[in-house]
Amino acid sequence: MSTQNPTPAGDRVDGRTPDQLRDVHITRNWLDHAEGSALIEFGRTRVLCAASFTEGVPRWKKGSGSGWVTAEYAMLPRATNTRGARESVKGKIGGRTHEISRLIGRSLRAIIDLDALGENTIQLDCDVLQADGGTRTAAITGAYVALADAIAWGKQHAAVPAAKQVLTDSVSAISVGIVEGRPLLDLEYREDVTAQTDMNVVVTGSGSFVEVQGTAEGAPFDRTELGALLDLATGGCAELAQIQRDVLVEQR
Amino acid sequence: MSTQNPTPAGDRVDGRTPDQLRDVHITRNWLDHAEGSALIEFGRTRVLCAASFTEGVPRWKKGSGSGWVTAEYAMLPRATNTRGARESVKGKIGGRTHEISRLIGRSLRAIIDLDALGENTIQLDCDVLQADGGTRTAAITGAYVALADAIAWGKQHAAVPAAKQVLTDSVSAISVGIVEGRPLLDLEYREDVTAQTDMNVVVTGSGSFVEVQGTAEGAPFDRTELGALLDLATGGCAELAQIQRDVLVEQR
Amino acid sequence: MSTQNPTPAGDRVDGRTPDQLRDVHITRNWLDHAEGSALIEFGRTRVLCAASFTEGVPRWKKGSGSGWVTAEYAMLPRATNTRGARESVKGKIGGRTHEISRLIGRSLRAIIDLDALGENTIQLDCDVLQADGGTRTAAITGAYVALADAIAWGKQHAAVPAAKQVLTDSVSAISVGIVEGRPLLDLEYREDVTAQTDMNVVVTGSGSFVEVQGTAEGAPFDRTELGALLDLATGGCAELAQIQRDVLVEQR
Amino acid sequence: MSTQNPTPAGDRVDGRTPDQLRDVHITRNWLDHAEGSALIEFGRTRVLCAASFTEGVPRWKKGSGSGWVTAEYAMLPRATNTRGARESVKGKIGGRTHEISRLIGRSLRAIIDLDALGENTIQLDCDVLQADGGTRTAAITGAYVALADAIAWGKQHAAVPAAKQVLTDSVSAISVGIVEGRPLLDLEYREDVTAQTDMNVVVTGSGSFVEVQGTAEGAPFDRTELGALLDLATGGCAELAQIQRDVLVEQR
Amino acid sequence: MSTQNPTPAGDRVDGRTPDQLRDVHITRNWLDHAEGSALIEFGRTRVLCAASFTEGVPRWKKGSGSGWVTAEYAMLPRATNTRGARESVKGKIGGRTHEISRLIGRSLRAIIDLDALGENTIQLDCDVLQADGGTRTAAITGAYVALADAIAWGKQHAAVPAAKQVLTDSVSAISVGIVEGRPLLDLEYREDVTAQTDMNVVVTGSGSFVEVQGTAEGAPFDRTELGALLDLATGGCAELAQIQRDVLVEQR
Amino acid sequence: MSTQNPTPAGDRVDGRTPDQLRDVHITRNWLDHAEGSALIEFGRTRVLCAASFTEGVPRWKKGSGSGWVTAEYAMLPRATNTRGARESVKGKIGGRTHEISRLIGRSLRAIIDLDALGENTIQLDCDVLQADGGTRTAAITGAYVALADAIAWGKQHAAVPAAKQVLTDSVSAISVGIVEGRPLLDLEYREDVTAQTDMNVVVTGSGSFVEVQGTAEGAPFDRTELGALLDLATGGCAELAQIQRDVLVEQR
Repeated sequence: MSTQNPTPAGDRVDGRTPDQLRDVHITRNWLDHAEGSALIEFGRTRVLCAASFTEGVPRWKKGSGSGWVTAEYAMLPRATNTRGARESVKGKIGGRTHEISRLIGRSLRAIIDLDALGENTIQLDCDVLQADGGTRTAAITGAYVALADAIAWGKQHAAVPAAKQVLTDSVSAISVGIVEGRPLLDLEYREDVTAQTDMNVVVTGSGSFVEVQGTAEGAPFDRTELGALLDLATGGCAELAQIQRDVLVEQR
Repeated sequence: MSTQNPTPAGDRVDGRTPDQLRDVHITRNWLDHAEGSALIEFGRTRVLCAASFTEGVPRWKKGSGSGWVTAEYAMLPRATNTRGARESVKGKIGGRTHEISRLIGRSLRAIIDLDALGENTIQLDCDVLQADGGTRTAAITGAYVALADAIAWGKQHAAVPAAKQVLTDSVSAISVGIVEGRPLLDLEYREDVTAQTDMNVVVTGSGSFVEVQGTAEGAPFDRTELGALLDLATGGCAELAQIQRDVLVEQR
Repeated sequence: MSTQNPTPAGDRVDGRTPDQLRDVHITRNWLDHAEGSALIEFGRTRVLCAASFTEGVPRWKKGSGSGWVTAEYAMLPRATNTRGARESVKGKIGGRTHEISRLIGRSLRAIIDLDALGENTIQLDCDVLQADGGTRTAAITGAYVALADAIAWGKQHAAVPAAKQVLTDSVSAISVGIVEGRPLLDLEYREDVTAQTDMNVVVTGSGSFVEVQGTAEGAPFDRTELGALLDLATGGCAELAQIQRDVLVEQR
Repeated sequence: MSTQNPTPAGDRVDGRTPDQLRDVHITRNWLDHAEGSALIEFGRTRVLCAASFTEGVPRWKKGSGSGWVTAEYAMLPRATNTRGARESVKGKIGGRTHEISRLIGRSLRAIIDLDALGENTIQLDCDVLQADGGTRTAAITGAYVALADAIAWGKQHAAVPAAKQVLTDSVSAISVGIVEGRPLLDLEYREDVTAQTDMNVVVTGSGSFVEVQGTAEGAPFDRTELGALLDLATGGCAELAQIQRDVLVEQR
Repeated sequence: MSTQNPTPAGDRVDGRTPDQLRDVHITRNWLDHAEGSALIEFGRTRVLCAASFTEGVPRWKKGSGSGWVTAEYAMLPRATNTRGARESVKGKIGGRTHEISRLIGRSLRAIIDLDALGENTIQLDCDVLQADGGTRTAAITGAYVALADAIAWGKQHAAVPAAKQVLTDSVSAISVGIVEGRPLLDLEYREDVTAQTDMNVVVTGSGSFVEVQGTAEGAPFDRTELGALLDLATGGCAELAQIQRDVLVEQR
Repeated sequence: MSTQNPTPAGDRVDGRTPDQLRDVHITRNWLDHAEGSALIEFGRTRVLCAASFTEGVPRWKKGSGSGWVTAEYAMLPRATNTRGARESVKGKIGGRTHEISRLIGRSLRAIIDLDALGENTIQLDCDVLQADGGTRTAAITGAYVALADAIAWGKQHAAVPAAKQVLTDSVSAISVGIVEGRPLLDLEYREDVTAQTDMNVVVTGSGSFVEVQGTAEGAPFDRTELGALLDLATGGCAELAQIQRDVLVEQR
């Protein structure tokens, strides 16, 4: 499922208007083994999201009657323009990887009723096959689709009672930023590196905020700029929520 | 230097009002060897901040004429109520530690003119001796004082030209959150664990935002709640900026 | 480019005959950033091969006038039927990963004239997106295509003189094995786990052996069986060499 | 509690006489969370000692009816004159750290009746906040105070029967050395680096030896020199034992 | 036990004929503590093989009624001509070490009836004390002797029923290679480094293959060359099998 | 070279008298590649000591005109009665290993004139092949022999001027301890585990102390006991110094 945005008419580096998303494609069930999976593309950014459903929970949740959802994010060495060393070879996870993995996990848990999930674990793996800006927000958006399918799998296989409402909402995410003084939606890499302020916003399908992470890369920002960025993000996430709904409906 | 807040008259867990900081103390030059240092206390939270000034820059900045500021955050094993394992013994840095170290570094770099610093490096070490909520924001606030002294040291020792304006502003940080439906300033640990939304805000002395990191721990939050939290944080950081100014003036 | 094998008429688990390859597809230039890349599929096995061309060589080859080709193999956590832990999270590379990475590097170096490459390095990354048996041999076969394109890139960008013959031959690889007493070509996972003898064979385009790695998983094997397996492998690799030629010609 | 030694009248680098300790201060209960804690200062050397009491013992002692006491020593990166890299960042504990941690643990266990402690564990954490020579001996001396309070805590909380005599003696430690041919007590850093022989001695409150670790840094030493050093150490530890008694009595 | 080959009359670097083994010595029970051990020497190559018998199996085999045999290979730092860094100091096992450990384990398991062994584990440690080519094949050959003794120990101590036939065959290994165009048996280091093709062959006492690992170091090899190498290896392993039989018989 | 002590007539666990060494054997040049080597045996304790001479010094000594001597100690997994896990597999060096490696290095440096050595490095590797108590002291005693030969090698190969006196003395080491109230020389393992006090003493050929490390394992010890242990150790080391002299003379 994808949104083929109309021919760009704006003046951004790739011709988009300030509030225009890149073309977004979601290929559901890209993998044969995973209980849920999605290959999500935002322009040239491609993230493979897999959801693994397993019965049982980590030791610290045993006997709680409640489930767990967690995530790991990683990037293939040649996802980027210049090859990066593998974290497995370096023998440790970098700070950025840790930070994004934690963000994805928190974002997905925000729309899950862990009690309804029961003592089951869903592990999300978001592997960036190609990076062109916005990999963490693409990962969250795609992971939601994989997660939804893994929950459906759990119900079909009777690990989760069919009557339970495990998902309390949907969730998507987008990056926004101030580039050359102008608030822009969905930064691609060339925009990202020149942004003065960079913000990742995670929004539920019903329009509330799950995470707001704004960072002044150059000059600090004020309340007005913050407001403009949140407006853009809210609009972008509404579009993404629609794409998610469409892809989950059409292919079912 | 410290602010001895008046006897608490509010109804929070420790008697504070919703917009009241805990008692804040900054002991400048707590260490004898470091070029700048501060022991900062927010109530029972105590963070020892050391700034190490060294000539030269990391390899990737050599020849750029520009300097570097970086930070490492850590917690002593018994800073917390229950002892935590040492990261040195586990052989790796955890995700939370990485994330906070990166936040502190970015926050301090936001108010530094790295070109004016010249090819020098300032390494900030923020070690939590005791934790009771708000350790990362206390670390940023204290690190600024240590940083200012390390820059003064660099000028006194002619590593930085005395005429250069290296600091472009001051910076402080505070945590805010929604606890039992109410926006509160400067959460202590008991409040932190029950907050539905938790936000760390980094603000310059002139009142602009450097970082805004809001997370829905429970229910997602809306624009109104976000606004109330930002108001509290802006007020709290203005108080902290004044304490920083006082401590840097009085003891010079 | 792919070979669509005719409708299986054999009696193997997926209907193939003993000497029949699975459907093989090679999508050249699957990645936008890499100097060479190929997504190779052997049935449900999918490996993404990227070749990164960089000027310069590792320290131990500096000044030799000669280049270097090396490889890293890895598997996404959910490539397999049951999720495997990430090696980056475990903090170390497993023995199997090491072994296969070394095999791929040796195999590709066998058909490269490192002196003709000059002091340049080509790093091959073979990441298994989905595993269904034969991942290492698919990796070698796909890596050759990525390598050929990376060398072409080096010539186009004048890092390698256009007149140099850097590739001395092509190379491909296939797994063979004895399953229920019968020698079979290109084992899929269900066959692989029941094989008594498992052999990976790496063959040049001109039909010579680069590597022969045979392992008795169950009963030891004799010279006759070894001969039968080598015959199958030689035939399979000849088919793969033709597919490689086709894909490199058609899309150029 | 501290000993304010009279104005130095000797000819050592800081004016002390050869058998004179530096000013020693012990601040009991410096931490709010730990079951026992002490900030100990020997001149500019400052070590924060925390004792964590937990019920239960490591797996290898389970069911033995006997307890365990162990210690970890570490140094903050800017404790020293030049910043040292964090062991958590390096990903491994250095040899010196290991060695000192083991020494502290052994020293404390020497004056504990582990059977009387019952199946409880006391973990000592000795973190050097500032280093000016003698950090390991200060750590042992301070750790004893923290340990005594942790045991008292265990009795107050009924984890240890009040009638049990868990501590069989007290323990303290001091460094001695031969500097420019002269035996000296309690070396500060400037003396330490020029010592020909360096010895750390751990002594019980009743005057017996727990550890004697003498090392010829320059010329080997003979029995006479060894005797002179042991005399100095015995005297110094008797003073320290008195300070420990005073601090444990006065503040109770 | 050893084979003292007649005075070399060939034209190889050490005077051997192409199909001649180096002098092979096996000192059984070189160690006092291990349940089985052998110091094996192939010329100057010396490998100490220890077999440790323990009751119980790894977690993943518990309750299976079946045992486990595994191996670890390592090299002392000064086994080689130039000192190599210790893997313990580097903090990780290299790819070559991993590969050889896995090969030894597989080779020994090929001649063991794990069901007959019962829920017992035999751990083989093969430590190269001195290296001069052929360390992995010497390790396999010596490990068999240690393994046989460890099984005998298990029977004597009633951990394995005396009537069970645990060993189904014997196993030995040898390296062969093409050096200056000529197939040679049992390469010493000087021959190994100049070999165009290098092959390690693991053969049972009854003459079947357990592993065939041939690698073209220089030019690829053809079926004829492969045949010649297998002939040499088969002959060499038959000699080794006889030495193993002799050493196990004579010293019993 | 060895000392064959007369038939034991004492009442120790192996029949020795309290001041009697175990049989000590030193096999010089046990290795073919190392510049110096010795296999040293104290009863069943066997340590292989290798000295590697390399031109050049670590970075921090470059240009000093002075050399470096360092040591690494390790134990094979099955050196002990029960197999221990490899430190390379665990991925880190244990505290005990670190501590002993540092002790060996310090002990050897005490009798070396590093300036006379010039900018050369000697690396000592002491690998315990079998352990039965006293491995660290055997390692020091054997390492001296390997070191002496490596220095001679350096002179023969003109890396060190023949006229330089690099060794200023010899060095050996022995363990002593109080077992069942009685001071004993050269503890074997069964004695070591029951010792109340355990002391390792490193003594020069001329009878001065390099290291004295006494530890109360059970009850603390007094000056009289310390004196008795030092007397035993001094006598034992004098015997060892003679054995070292003999082995270095006879085989030259």
